[in-house]
Amino acid sequence: MSTPDSIAQSARRAAGEVSTLPTERKNSVLIDLADTIDREQGRVLTANHADLDAARTTGLADAKIRRLTLTPTVLRQIVDGLRQVAALPDPVGQVCSDRQVPSGLRVQRVRIPLGVILMIYEARPNVTIDAFGLCFKAGNACILKGGREAGRSNATLIELIHEVLQRHGVSPAVAALVTSSDRDEMRALLQLHQLIDLVIPRGGLELVRFVHEHSRIPIVQHFMGVCHIFVDDSADLERAIELCATAKTSAPAACNAMEAVLVHQAVAQQFVPRLVERLTREGVEIRGDPLVCKLAPAATPALPEDWGREFLDLICAIRVVSDVEAAIEHIQRHGSNHTEAILSNNKEHQRLFQERIQSSCVMVNASTRFNDGFQLGLGAEIGISTSKIHAYGPMGLDELTTQRFVVTGDYQSR
Amino acid sequence: MSTPDSIAQSARRAAGEVSTLPTERKNSVLIDLADTIDREQGRVLTANHADLDAARTTGLADAKIRRLTLTPTVLRQIVDGLRQVAALPDPVGQVCSDRQVPSGLRVQRVRIPLGVILMIYEARPNVTIDAFGLCFKAGNACILKGGREAGRSNATLIELIHEVLQRHGVSPAVAALVTSSDRDEMRALLQLHQLIDLVIPRGGLELVRFVHEHSRIPIVQHFMGVCHIFVDDSADLERAIELCATAKTSAPAACNAMEAVLVHQAVAQQFVPRLVERLTREGVEIRGDPLVCKLAPAATPALPEDWGREFLDLICAIRVVSDVEAAIEHIQRHGSNHTEAILSNNKEHQRLFQERIQSSCVMVNASTRFNDGFQLGLGAEIGISTSKIHAYGPMGLDELTTQRFVVTGDYQSR
Repeated sequence: MSTPDSIAQSARRAAGEVSTLPTERKNSVLIDLADTIDREQGRVLTANHADLDAARTTGLADAKIRRLTLTPTVLRQIVDGLRQVAALPDPVGQVCSDRQVPSGLRVQRVRIPLGVILMIYEARPNVTIDAFGLCFKAGNACILKGGREAGRSNATLIELIHEVLQRHGVSPAVAALVTSSDRDEMRALLQLHQLIDLVIPRGGLELVRFVHEHSRIPIVQHFMGVCHIFVDDSADLERAIELCATAKTSAPAACNAMEAVLVHQAVAQQFVPRLVERLTREGVEIRGDPLVCKLAPAATPALPEDWGREFLDLICAIRVVSDVEAAIEHIQRHGSNHTEAILSNNKEHQRLFQERIQSSCVMVNASTRFNDGFQLGLGAEIGISTSKIHAYGPMGLDELTTQRFVVTGDYQSR
Repeated sequence: MSTPDSIAQSARRAAGEVSTLPTERKNSVLIDLADTIDREQGRVLTANHADLDAARTTGLADAKIRRLTLTPTVLRQIVDGLRQVAALPDPVGQVCSDRQVPSGLRVQRVRIPLGVILMIYEARPNVTIDAFGLCFKAGNACILKGGREAGRSNATLIELIHEVLQRHGVSPAVAALVTSSDRDEMRALLQLHQLIDLVIPRGGLELVRFVHEHSRIPIVQHFMGVCHIFVDDSADLERAIELCATAKTSAPAACNAMEAVLVHQAVAQQFVPRLVERLTREGVEIRGDPLVCKLAPAATPALPEDWGREFLDLICAIRVVSDVEAAIEHIQRHGSNHTEAILSNNKEHQRLFQERIQSSCVMVNASTRFNDGFQLGLGAEIGISTSKIHAYGPMGLDELTTQRFVVTGDYQSR
């Protein structure tokens, strides 16, 4: 039996191997894995069906069933994702700065992998491949702890990963799957700070809290996305309606979906009824402050806890605020440092909002839904960090590495 | 009485204020503080004498007394340090990247402060000013928890800081001093992850371990510096002797001082006796492996625990290794990820050493003593991180900030 300690020991050894693997060999592994998943689709889908049958028997919630489900389309996305990661530049060895200092030394900052990354996530088998692909390309070993309900799917996927690694002469220990859902085992893993360099929890509040409470390993956490849009009095209201509506409806359960709209009082009368009409027409339930409920009777009164709430559903809160300052104050109190947007044609208000709102991503006249590694040009993402340390916002390949100093001299002493 | 919670609450509020303070106002504060410390030297030295008297009465160790001692010369360095920090570019607002993505959005990564930084250090009153200066310039509030024995010195220094801040209309809460040495109070502070963004422990093993064990706040730790120098068979031996000797003797207790020399067997007979002769002449005690003891009878046999030990004193371990690979293995087993050097004229050995040694700083033909924020061109440093997350190696102003995304569009939806 593999213990948490023996898994982490093997990963640590494998990390040394993958850290210096040439780019072409890493890319060949990723492309071969894409081809293999393509070819072995049947095997993956059979395992996934077994997981789904079991999940339905135990009455797993619909939203969770959806995330657990693999289809040929989802597999196609996974495979495309791997090919995209193979095509991205290798961050390892990248020279980020290079200068001569007065002592005559040449000082370079060079990217190196982090080492061993522990990824803890829910029953979403696509994350198994996505996380492996990114960690591997950035030269790291990974320990993948996926949700129990995806056990058979993940076991099949890791089998494919190991087959491919072996075919390329790379130690299978660069990707370990932890299948047990034993909390004691997870706690034991989270103590191994001398073997594991980073833990990335990706999932619900309870999961992130558990990791945060028990980890002695550094964490980059993806907490809640309580995203706000402020509609200023100078906004283009026609386009603001379209933008606000889709920011909720295009993916209501996504972390970058809008949860609340703050409307400048000067345009409330004009804007609120039309926004509520549009949203309710698309099946969105509105929780409004007293003025919103007066202007748009379709809205129901918001409860105090509806401000700062991640609805993860077709529900949206709307409040009228006196000005940009009041909007900033509301967000500072209720936001989650994920994504906030201002819709405004007033440069001074844009500047104030950008400066005072310190979320991982501030959008000026763009939807919160653009806070995503692909959309922002990182090429891929392993998650969106809402803590400021190490990475803030979408984490791509660079954020799975660190920079160290390489100094070259001519026998200088000091 | 200020509780840990009320101190952190005030710091959090003040962080909002200092995060948007214009560069010129921050610099005026730093320069005024330098002038004020200069002017009030007598007040600072009197407080320090009281600390030193008390410390001598309780029999504090000599090394600790030295670090606690302020003199006009030390104060001059502190004041010069503040002026240097004032002269450095402001990292806040710096645009680190700026590009247009296919959706038409303009995506910028912009530096913002971390927020509230908790600095925990030993009885070294100079750190109080150094840490405040760097945190403040980078737009952060700081909570300074210095060693108990420096209580009076730190209280006087924080008085001066507060006087200057008030004179410039800045909230004194941007710099809080925690004077109590109560471990319960420290534990309470370390729980406040919703108010404090980063904790930097700087000090001995026990202090760093305590923080690591009890903190729910992200930590950038400065652990041990067990620095190695490998002398290859192709090294310039004459200059290697000078370099190795000064790497130990110029500051034996510094974290970047050399603790062990690994010598290629092909040059051992020629190099070891001369190195030992030079080091012992300068009062360094040598712990050698059997071959070293045979080649240089002045050496005493190294104990197993002498490999990987931070002597912090005029003691040095020396071992003969078969080749560069054996040197790398020794360092991987015994190193602390701080600083390692290779002295070699063989490009292939240099490359192998750089690639396989993943310490925060790898030196090629230069002394380990150059791993220092000033020497490597950062302008200043708040410590040297030996953990890979967020910052690895010397931490300057940039490392006291984070990068977030600022995205500008033309009402794009998704």
